[in-house]
Amino acid sequence: MLRLYEFLLSANCYKARLLMTQLAIPFERIELDFTKQEHRHPEFLHKNLQGKVPVLELETGDFLLESNAIMFYLSKGTQFLPDDHLEQSKVMQWLFFEQYSLMPYLASCRFWMTILNKADEFSEIIIEKQKSGYAALAVMEQHLQSHSFFVGNQYTIADIGLFAYVHVADEGGYSLTEFPGIQLWLERVKNQPHYIDITQV
Amino acid sequence: MLRLYEFLLSANCYKARLLMTQLAIPFERIELDFTKQEHRHPEFLHKNLQGKVPVLELETGDFLLESNAIMFYLSKGTQFLPDDHLEQSKVMQWLFFEQYSLMPYLASCRFWMTILNKADEFSEIIIEKQKSGYAALAVMEQHLQSHSFFVGNQYTIADIGLFAYVHVADEGGYSLTEFPGIQLWLERVKNQPHYIDITQV
Repeated sequence: MLRLYEFLLSANCYKARLLMTQLAIPFERIELDFTKQEHRHPEFLHKNLQGKVPVLELETGDFLLESNAIMFYLSKGTQFLPDDHLEQSKVMQWLFFEQYSLMPYLASCRFWMTILNKADEFSEIIIEKQKSGYAALAVMEQHLQSHSFFVGNQYTIADIGLFAYVHVADEGGYSLTEFPGIQLWLERVKNQPHYIDITQV
Repeated sequence: MLRLYEFLLSANCYKARLLMTQLAIPFERIELDFTKQEHRHPEFLHKNLQGKVPVLELETGDFLLESNAIMFYLSKGTQFLPDDHLEQSKVMQWLFFEQYSLMPYLASCRFWMTILNKADEFSEIIIEKQKSGYAALAVMEQHLQSHSFFVGNQYTIADIGLFAYVHVADEGGYSLTEFPGIQLWLERVKNQPHYIDITQV
């Protein structure tokens, strides 16, 4: 059986958990205790030298890292990844956009404000990060003005990847009031079959 | 014919140029003048709302963004992308590692030190960024202690993606003295057929 090493609150981990649930792929969850620094233990570092989650352990004993690469692996041949190679490349385009232009700015603010609960201490850098985060949200909004989903007019791993941090953007102090297209798309994702919440296991 | 919109000095753009050269794919280069902010002109923004390069214009008139997604698109069915899906997923794993954990720290230091030539002005943040950059280089070094390339013991787009910024890491003040595995791998990449330099068009 596949094994997913994760933190429940990590939206990167949620991507893999949501996809496997929607694909009805059985898996074992191994929750690492972040407060005990379990992701820094030698036993875990041998799986992933960076001490990052999620890590997917395959039935062969092999390990796959990086949330979006894990989704790519799991979704092949399913409705979550288009067969057409250009469409697959556009899925990749949005997933790289997510990791470089969006996620660092949403995840960091959420970490400081909600996970550490230190909004005051980090207020200056939060404002700085939010500028870039809002710029990335504006790119998404522009796309969603004329599209229901990100690639090929269907729900794919591009949507899961972007949804993960955007649907909890408010926990990093973001307001989506100016992004009506994103708000509608969030509802569209939440209405997909077998949707689960980020804290649902 | 394919059209590549790029800056010559951008190592993200170099990835696409190097790959197309090695694959003998003919393409037209459109160099944008960074100093004239040509990447912010409305004509270019309609291709890429973020005003980022590289952008690959396909023969259909369609646009593909994100250097690693462009490489994924171009390399399908070639020796630069393994056929096996798990190996393809590992290529993706390293490319996401590159965009999230490596490139932001190497590219920013190179930009301040060599492209803007303002090492003094940015000295404090350069030291800060280099800590994360060196951590990512250590992850690569560990892998290269027992592997010749990043995936499947062959030169793939994972190597091109990682090579692009690492081979000019010195321009961001990085020393590779402590990374003998990386040094050997850099030479291995430079010895590949039809290799071109970052400033070679």
